[in-house]
Amino acid sequence: MESTGSAEARLAELGIALPDAPKPLGAYVPAVQSGKLLFLSGMLPIAGGLPLAVGRIGAELDMEQGRAAARAACLNALAVARSHLGSLDRVTRIVRLGVSIAAANEFREHPYLADAASNLLEDVFGKQKTSTRIIVGVANLPLGLPVALELILEVQ
Amino acid sequence: MESTGSAEARLAELGIALPDAPKPLGAYVPAVQSGKLLFLSGMLPIAGGLPLAVGRIGAELDMEQGRAAARAACLNALAVARSHLGSLDRVTRIVRLGVSIAAANEFREHPYLADAASNLLEDVFGKQKTSTRIIVGVANLPLGLPVALELILEVQ
Amino acid sequence: MESTGSAEARLAELGIALPDAPKPLGAYVPAVQSGKLLFLSGMLPIAGGLPLAVGRIGAELDMEQGRAAARAACLNALAVARSHLGSLDRVTRIVRLGVSIAAANEFREHPYLADAASNLLEDVFGKQKTSTRIIVGVANLPLGLPVALELILEVQ
Repeated sequence: MESTGSAEARLAELGIALPDAPKPLGAYVPAVQSGKLLFLSGMLPIAGGLPLAVGRIGAELDMEQGRAAARAACLNALAVARSHLGSLDRVTRIVRLGVSIAAANEFREHPYLADAASNLLEDVFGKQKTSTRIIVGVANLPLGLPVALELILEVQ
Repeated sequence: MESTGSAEARLAELGIALPDAPKPLGAYVPAVQSGKLLFLSGMLPIAGGLPLAVGRIGAELDMEQGRAAARAACLNALAVARSHLGSLDRVTRIVRLGVSIAAANEFREHPYLADAASNLLEDVFGKQKTSTRIIVGVANLPLGLPVALELILEVQ
Repeated sequence: MESTGSAEARLAELGIALPDAPKPLGAYVPAVQSGKLLFLSGMLPIAGGLPLAVGRIGAELDMEQGRAAARAACLNALAVARSHLGSLDRVTRIVRLGVSIAAANEFREHPYLADAASNLLEDVFGKQKTSTRIIVGVANLPLGLPVALELILEVQ
């Protein structure tokens, strides 16, 4: 089913309740808007203040744990965006999605893992707002988390 | 020889025929424009749908293979930008070039590898449009590819 | 003590003399402005043309060496921004701080290391200009350096 144009209505249709926006882990803020661009800080798979999983994909964690982590991080991103904007209906485009994956050396299937976040964004905002995407397989991430997302949104 | 001001003319002078714009590997689009900024997705060394090389620089692959990969990824970026804009002559500035290199631990010569992309951009657009650049040596990249580029262009 | 609104005055109060702006290591420029956004190239812990430290945090280097490297890279960023803008008082917001840390596999304390740069920015520009932040633990960085910073500033 395609989006009706309202991300907030679509979230409700999907039965998704966003978590509380996560608190920063240091001397930064969750979001900064400059002109029409809203930059979000690195969004992590933390729920209720606790890591959802710790380790690398293809080593301590498997693909499904990685996809669940990507989805959880994406929900945190939506929570931060709503907290900043008041409503996700102000988002006119997902401009850029950066996906950092802590993965074992031989890991190759980054796109399928990242799609767990990208598909959620398409479900909520519709394919006409689909983002660019850049993926890197990193050595490690804050707290030993397996995934971090970075979003730039265009807003009105 | 410096650019005459036309990137398309310069491409022809250099005898460079751009490849077809690569297809996304998942739920994202190759390019998104917001205002005057054109964001490109991660551009990979894939030609004709096939990886140009797989492995890490300083391990399975050497510097010249890495530079060839960076150049191939950059040609894909130009193809995507032309596909989006109609003509590369609409590019007023290369704002940012991000270079991710999958490299062995002891690798140090990231700038020389990245220059294979940066020099191509300067050859096509001229030095007055030269970009900022950020390089990271990553653990791995989608499909096991050795290099990924990310570009932000200013366009008119 | 909070900023008085003038970053240049605050720098003087703190007794900080900025280094000369570092020279690029390849075919790129230190800064590009597009509209109100000023993009800086990857800023490295190099002083007087020499690496401040070489190695990975949690392996060859410890946390305090990493924090010193992050602070040195941040001073270079301020030097580049001043060189481009004429005065840091033209900075209206730190939009984004990207922190790449070359760290041993088991490293977890990225936020504390990155705060060495974030705290310096807050000291100079005041908390009302605090940035978003994204951190990745990378495999390696140019020249074997342990930290690289990337900044996007909003300027007037």
